[in-house]
Order: sequence, then C-alpha cells, then structure tokens
Amino acid sequence: MMYVVGVDAGGTTTRARALAADGTVLGTGRAGGANPNSHPPAQAAAAVAEAVAAATAGLDRAGLRACVVGMAGAGKLTDPAVADIFRRTWREGGFGDVARVVSDAEAAFASATAEPDGTVLVAGTGSIAGRIRKRRMVSVAGGYGWLLGDEGSGFWIGREAVRATLDALSRGTALGTLATSVLAQAGIDPDEPRAFHRLITAANGEPPVRLARFAPLVSAAVDDDPEAERIVEQAAGLLTRTALTARDVDESTPVVLVGSVLAEDSPVGIRVRTRLSGLDVLGSSDGVLGAAWLAAVEAFGEHALHPKGVL
Amino acid sequence: MMYVVGVDAGGTTTRARALAADGTVLGTGRAGGANPNSHPPAQAAAAVAEAVAAATAGLDRAGLRACVVGMAGAGKLTDPAVADIFRRTWREGGFGDVARVVSDAEAAFASATAEPDGTVLVAGTGSIAGRIRKRRMVSVAGGYGWLLGDEGSGFWIGREAVRATLDALSRGTALGTLATSVLAQAGIDPDEPRAFHRLITAANGEPPVRLARFAPLVSAAVDDDPEAERIVEQAAGLLTRTALTARDVDESTPVVLVGSVLAEDSPVGIRVRTRLSGLDVLGSSDGVLGAAWLAAVEAFGEHALHPKGVL
Repeated sequence: MMYVVGVDAGGTTTRARALAADGTVLGTGRAGGANPNSHPPAQAAAAVAEAVAAATAGLDRAGLRACVVGMAGAGKLTDPAVADIFRRTWREGGFGDVARVVSDAEAAFASATAEPDGTVLVAGTGSIAGRIRKRRMVSVAGGYGWLLGDEGSGFWIGREAVRATLDALSRGTALGTLATSVLAQAGIDPDEPRAFHRLITAANGEPPVRLARFAPLVSAAVDDDPEAERIVEQAAGLLTRTALTARDVDESTPVVLVGSVLAEDSPVGIRVRTRLSGLDVLGSSDGVLGAAWLAAVEAFGEHALHPKGVL
Repeated sequence: MMYVVGVDAGGTTTRARALAADGTVLGTGRAGGANPNSHPPAQAAAAVAEAVAAATAGLDRAGLRACVVGMAGAGKLTDPAVADIFRRTWREGGFGDVARVVSDAEAAFASATAEPDGTVLVAGTGSIAGRIRKRRMVSVAGGYGWLLGDEGSGFWIGREAVRATLDALSRGTALGTLATSVLAQAGIDPDEPRAFHRLITAANGEPPVRLARFAPLVSAAVDDDPEAERIVEQAAGLLTRTALTARDVDESTPVVLVGSVLAEDSPVGIRVRTRLSGLDVLGSSDGVLGAAWLAAVEAFGEHALHPKGVL
C-alpha cells in the first residue's frame, strides 16, 4: 500500500501522521520538540525520526511515497552543517530520501486551503507574513524577531501592556483595568512607591519574549479599558499591514491566519478579519494535517483529498 | 578654608572637583566607573571615595561644606541595601556626612543654567526627560530602558537603521547609503543570498544596547538617504514629545539637552532645537561642573558663582 507522512515539528512537541491515498489515517506518532533554534540539531532531527517511526510502525517502508515535515525554525536548515545532520539522521531512519522540510507557516497555509497561492499571516509570540506561491513561501514580510520587529505579536502586545502601565504610573493618575492586572501579574503592589522601578526590573528579569505573558491581559481588558482597546487596534493594524505587504495590490487569493493572537474569537483576530473583510480569510487548521496533505499532493497529485474535505 | 566637592560618577570614569567659595579650583580627582547598575555597589562606592580623596588631597576635611555626586544609575540607591553600602563607604572616606547623590541628569541640568526649574532631555544610548524643580528631578518621562522604551535614543536609532536595512533586503530593491553602510559595519556582503538572515543573527549576537553602534551611520547618511532622514526626523519627534511630556503646557523655563544624540551639530540635535525653537534651549556642559555648582549652592547659597559665569 502506498502512503505518505506529514510531520508537525514544533518547539515542545513533534507529531506525525501517516495517510493512505484515500485519506485514511494509518498511524500517528509523537515525540519531543524539534525546533532547531531551541534544540541541538541532532536532538531535533532525532525527534522527527522518532515521531515518523511511531506513525509508520507496522507499515511497509517501501510504500512510503513522500514525507513532508512542517518545522518551526526551518530557516536554520539553510546552514549546511545543520542540514547535513538532519539528512544523515533521517536516512538512518529510512525516510531521508522522501523527506522534505517546509516551514510551519507553509504547513499551516496548506492546512486551511487547497489553493496553491495566497498569504499566510502568523502571530503567536512572534509575527510574520508569507507570500505563498505553489504552496511554497516565496518571500516574507516581517519576521525580524523580537529585538528588531515582531509587530503585533504576543511579545509586542505584552510589551505595550507593560509600557502603558509604566505610562500610567508616571502620570500618577488612577490605574485602569489593564495596568492593575499587569501589576498583579508581576506580583507588584500598585500602591508601593517603587512600583514603577519594580515593573521595569521584573520585565527585564526574564527573557524578553516572556513579555508575551502579559498579552492575554490586554485581550481580557479590551472592553473595560481604552488603553487595551488602543493596543489591540494598533496590533490589528500592524498585522494587517504586514499581511498586505506580502500581497500584490489586486490579489484575490486567500489569507490564512495562524497563531493564538489571530484566533477567530480573539480581539486582534476579530479586528484583523474586519480589516481584511473584502478578502477570503481563513483560520488555519492543524499543521500536521497541512504537512500530510502537502505530502499527499506530492505523491498522488493535485487532486489528493484535502484534510478539510476540499478537492 | 571652606570648600565643596562635585563628583561626576559615570559608567567608565568618575571625576571629582573641589571648589572654593569664589569658584577657584582647589583640586581634581579621577577613578574608575561608579554606575551601580554596571558595577558592584561596593566597587562603585569606593570609586567615588577614591576620586574625592584625590580632589581633596592636602585640603583640611573640616572645611568641606558639601559634596554632590551626580551619578548615572542613581535610581539604584532607592534599594536600601545598596544605599547602606554607599553610606558606610563614604563615612569611612570622611565625607559621608556632607555627601548627597543626585542623578546625572540633575547634574547636567545644573551644568547648563543657574535657573532652578526647567526640563532636562537626555539621549545617549538610552533616553529620558526630567521635570526639574528647585534643581531636583521631581518626575520623569520615558527612561523605561531599551526593552520597553528609549525612543529616539542611540539604541533606538541604531535599531531603526537595522530594521530599514532588513526592509530593503526584503524588498530586493537597490540598497541605499544607509543599508550599504549597516551591512558593511556588520561585515556582511550585500550580495550574498543569506544577507538578511545574517544581519538578524549579527544584531542578536551582541547585547541589545550595542545596536547603538549603528546610530552614527544614520547621522552620516542623512543627506544622501531618505531612510536616514526619516529615522532622524522620527527620533527628533519622539525626543521632543518626551521633553514636552515633562513640561507644563505654558512653561517657559529652559530645556537642557544632554548626550551625544542631542549634540549641537548632530542631525537629531539640530532638529530637536528647531522643534523647540520657541523655548530657551541650552546644551549641557560638564556634569562635574554641575555637581560642583549644586554643592556650592548648598554650602554658600543661591548666589554662588555658576560654572558658566552666570550669577
């Protein structure tokens, strides 16, 4: 029997799924994180091999026609030394010859639509938009990382929440819902005279991306606090601009939204959908489905069954 | 003979100056850095004591009427444990009873004007504005540090230079003067395909504040490259807004500009002066003179000779 494997290789978990040509799930597998930016390359490559082995246990490897690995941090494989470690590990695992790495954003795009062209907009801790042509990301907008960009991301929203709280403490006016919850989250008594300095110290006392921990407080305060509303509006505007930068002016292809910040019922997600309302805006589905479908298209052609049921 | 001492305690050097009541310089001293944010408190306190000892060598300590220490990172002394280390070290040095710490911004304000009230705007690697009343900074605007703010600072300008370069590399259009010099500074060949990723890696490979190393490239490119002009204009706008946030709407007191970004002949310094042209805008002089003058006012009264010759 011919089959394909899709893999979603993330920061904390790697999942694999084996699919027959008719879409039947033949097996699933799971292993630890495989983002080569946060794990040693050998460990990341081995986690993918472990998940693939589990998903294909009991299947004849001769039937494996394609394996697509959607990977967070896939850009790291432009480093030849890193790519070599992956290639060798996967050859030893018996799937190196049919394996192909795509970015997690490409897998997410494919999870949402059978269309080959469009835009993917990702906003989790970081943010990036990709121009998709023939299911590959041919260029990006944003994606500079927290130090240089990530506008509208969870990091950015969390940082704005802390900045707004420092502004309020500087002014000495009564604190709103957002500032109050930011100080509570940081474990700081709003009435103590050193609250301003303690908040700066708390924010600088953890890795910068951990500022994203304050982002949910902005969503929670959006109906009560004009400061939260301002941050959410600004994030939606920045993310929309990032998405449009990755598109031609008259492009009518779908836009696929990915990540917690852009969830369908989140304040930023709702506002981005409103701003893009003339376009076909879709939420991403599970990345492992997108990767499996990309593998199916590769092995069985354009008319492979899309995981969302689209032909 | 009665005299006073002023100290400028900076990140890399500490300087002290002893002044007689008539402004005569009685002695000078120098020691290593004394910023308690970048040095252990005991070492910072000892550096100040060493500089004071050198400036007062041969003078009768009974004549010392006041000692004002202008200190970068003075906010650290709101920590009682740190303050205690300074107090003990300076008592042992024989000037603890007459010593008083002010911020480097307060010393800089006093170095420029004999007026008791006004605004100080600082832009070096970081940025902050202070509202000065009776020569003390009674509140600040900005000063959140590089992670949360520092708008218009050398860090901010350098980061914008890198971002603009990444934008240009993303667009794939011809690189302007600024982008070309940023890549040269980072040691990256503009024609290599991985230039975009290598610049992100280079920026993240050093402490974030080191992004300030790209700021001079913006000044250098300002006449040739609209991107550099845009960054300089934006920095000037942000710094002006920070300064005005620290002022009352109808305030007519002086504004003292401090730091390399605001130098009289720098592109940002010129633009900030233009934006504030209705006000009395002054450049700061040497912080050690400001500290010495604050000490003289404390010991000899409001009519002590100002180091710039103002009564």
